[in-house]
Amino acid sequence: MIFYSNWRSLAAYRVRVALALKGISHTVMPIDMLGGEHLLPAFRAVNPQAVLPALVLDDGQVLFQSMAILEYLDEIATQPPLLPADAAGRARVRGLAQIHAADSHPLLVPRVRQFLQKDAGMDDAGVQRWIARALTTGLQAIETNLVTSPQTGTYCHGDQITLADICLSSHLLAMMFFKIDDAAFPTAVAIHGRLMALPAFADSHPLRQPGAPS
Amino acid sequence: MIFYSNWRSLAAYRVRVALALKGISHTVMPIDMLGGEHLLPAFRAVNPQAVLPALVLDDGQVLFQSMAILEYLDEIATQPPLLPADAAGRARVRGLAQIHAADSHPLLVPRVRQFLQKDAGMDDAGVQRWIARALTTGLQAIETNLVTSPQTGTYCHGDQITLADICLSSHLLAMMFFKIDDAAFPTAVAIHGRLMALPAFADSHPLRQPGAPS
Repeated sequence: MIFYSNWRSLAAYRVRVALALKGISHTVMPIDMLGGEHLLPAFRAVNPQAVLPALVLDDGQVLFQSMAILEYLDEIATQPPLLPADAAGRARVRGLAQIHAADSHPLLVPRVRQFLQKDAGMDDAGVQRWIARALTTGLQAIETNLVTSPQTGTYCHGDQITLADICLSSHLLAMMFFKIDDAAFPTAVAIHGRLMALPAFADSHPLRQPGAPS
Repeated sequence: MIFYSNWRSLAAYRVRVALALKGISHTVMPIDMLGGEHLLPAFRAVNPQAVLPALVLDDGQVLFQSMAILEYLDEIATQPPLLPADAAGRARVRGLAQIHAADSHPLLVPRVRQFLQKDAGMDDAGVQRWIARALTTGLQAIETNLVTSPQTGTYCHGDQITLADICLSSHLLAMMFFKIDDAAFPTAVAIHGRLMALPAFADSHPLRQPGAPS
């Protein structure tokens, strides 16, 4: 399979981690997102939404949307599983993951920040407040759940790495990129520290990918 | 189970449709979102994120995030299935669903619109442009996929109702709420028309819920 990726895209990071955890063989095709390569016809022919990541299967089918891709990878390569065995546990994991992927992260993506600056005329400080609010409200919800749930363990859900961990890590990398203070979220930060000690996460770090600033 | 809902919440609408399609017995607990009831301690004790919907299971576990709840309902009540039988098909359905749930809809929710108006000082016309852009770019991606994929059928994916249809319907209801022209998206509009002819969708319509304006 071909993985269309970009060093900075956090949605691509989430897929990169899953590919690494499961040891799935693939070819990386870097797209220069900051240079606008994802908007050109060549990439639009792959993913008409013109967003990253995209995963092209060997039969040519193009998968899009990081969370859909993660579920797919978990289905075709079942070890290690990224979801717990019970339905209620899966709901908790997917719920935690979606707080990041469907509440916070959509507010930060480049096309949204550009719109705020160019169309809405928001200044840099306004955009920074916007980003800080999106990230801290989401992380507050995640932290509260982690602190109060008996299901929290070494990672977000017991001692098994799940989709919730991949999204938590993506969330905390966003905090780092945008220099948002994470001191109020010690449980989340501690789990992220444990994740980053693992090669699948460390080697997938945005700043360790081709094209990233040194 | 107890379903914390609000007539206007599109995330609640998505769960309402799934409950109806599967005929799952539940108690509805309406929360006055426009009056800020979701921000009060009583509801925060249910869902600390203070957003709708939430689904409280009989054992007390609280499920949150609409897409996580939909997957849960599909797992505990398998008929009719809301996902196709093959992994690649499921990836397409989840991808289409996430374009709405993780790209477009997060930009429209009341807390985001309020932030744009109060903190960013965006005027009504600016907010309307913001909403229109979020909805039309997402629907353009969905429409292109629907038009070009041989897997599109009576509904988004063949002739079976899936998560993609529930989210498409949510998307088109948002277009209606905000008076965004949908003429450029005939395939999506036609599918939505077929969905709205079904009782599970029609009876779940936001304007047919308790508390909705007449």
